[in-house]
Formats: sequence, C-alpha cells, structure tokens
Amino acid sequence: MIPAPATGLHLIADLAGCHGLGDVSLIEAALREAAAAAHVHVLSVHLHPFGPEQGVTGVALLAESHISIHSWPEEGLAAIDIFVCGPLADAEAALDVIAARLGGTIRHRHAIPRLGAALAR
Amino acid sequence: MIPAPATGLHLIADLAGCHGLGDVSLIEAALREAAAAAHVHVLSVHLHPFGPEQGVTGVALLAESHISIHSWPEEGLAAIDIFVCGPLADAEAALDVIAARLGGTIRHRHAIPRLGAALAR
Repeated sequence: MIPAPATGLHLIADLAGCHGLGDVSLIEAALREAAAAAHVHVLSVHLHPFGPEQGVTGVALLAESHISIHSWPEEGLAAIDIFVCGPLADAEAALDVIAARLGGTIRHRHAIPRLGAALAR
Repeated sequence: MIPAPATGLHLIADLAGCHGLGDVSLIEAALREAAAAAHVHVLSVHLHPFGPEQGVTGVALLAESHISIHSWPEEGLAAIDIFVCGPLADAEAALDVIAARLGGTIRHRHAIPRLGAALAR
C-alpha cells in the first residue's frame, strides 16, 4: 500500500554532463541504488532503450510512488523525477545517487510538496 | 527516439474529489486516452494495484517521456505527472482528459520547463 500522501514530495532535476546515458544496465542499477538510498521499495523497473547510442526511458515503480529517468546521450542530459511518499523516504539521497552514477551535475532542481502536504498549506 | 529536449514540459497536478481510483481498467484507459489527447505515443503501460479498495500506481512510458498516476481512493486523491517533449505534445490536454475520466478537480498545478527549455532560460 502506498503510504498516506500527507508527506508526498516530488523532486525534479535535470542532470548535465552525464555519461553512460545509453547503457540500460547502468541506468537500471542507478534506479535501484537510488531507491535503496531513499529507503523506498521497488515494485518493478521498466526500461526502453531507443537504439544504439540513443537514449533510454525508464521508471522504477515504488510502493512509495516512482523514480523516472529520460536520457539524451548526444546532449549529455538526463531528466530525473523522484516522487516519494512517507516520512522515511529520502528523495534527495536518491537524486544524489543517480547524479553520482551518471557523473552529472544537478541543474534546475525543483522540490514540490504533493497531495496532503500541498493541500495542508 | 525521444524528441530533442528543447521543448520539454513537465506538468504536475494533484486531483481531488476523484472516483474510480482503485479501478485498474479505468486508470489504464485514462492514461491511454490522455496520451492520445496529447498527441504522444505510448510505448508501454505498467500498472500496480495495491489491493481491493486500495490505490493504483501506474505509468505510461512514451516515446516523448511519460505520464504517471498514483491514487488514494480513501482520500479521493490522485497525483498526476505528465512529462512530454516535442513541439506537438500537449500536456494540458492530457491532464484535462485524466481529470474528466476520474471526475476530479485540479489542485496545485505546476508547469516546469525541462532540459533544453530550462537550460535556455
């Protein structure tokens, strides 16, 4: 069951200067390690490589919501979103793991309260 | 191939007062109809029901990025994110379709430029 939404947080960031963005195995490892760092539980991981030397679209569905990545190797860019619910979930730790795995720098980071956390404001 | 990221837009919204939030078939239909309305292409749809009268976590992976939903039937709440790239993608149309399908009202909407669109600012 998804934790109560009172503590939902959606962390969005673009990563620049990344490597390995066409490597499906690396991206799956990054998603799984990010979930572990965030103390959330992976239900399933789905990855779609667009072809040799092209990008990958991927998502980890979580008991606590999701982590997604979309990559453009030719630009060195990756778009990340990390949506987690529950007081123990650490979205920032997940983002740090993905940035470290891909060697990228975080650009245009947004942290958005969701649902209960937003509705209570 | 994912379109060039220059026109990436991430539309995030919470929906309140929804019905059908535990209905996997309804949620899959909402995701697919949302993609059609946005003029984007579905690669695959992945849904995880948390059990009877509980919520659903779902994502449509797109050639143009993704649409996700997480639902809490007991609260009437659904968390939506629609991330699309390309000049023809219409994220607002997708959100309107999902809100109409679930009978919900849009709360706390955020529209965030991504990647090229963000980096050019």
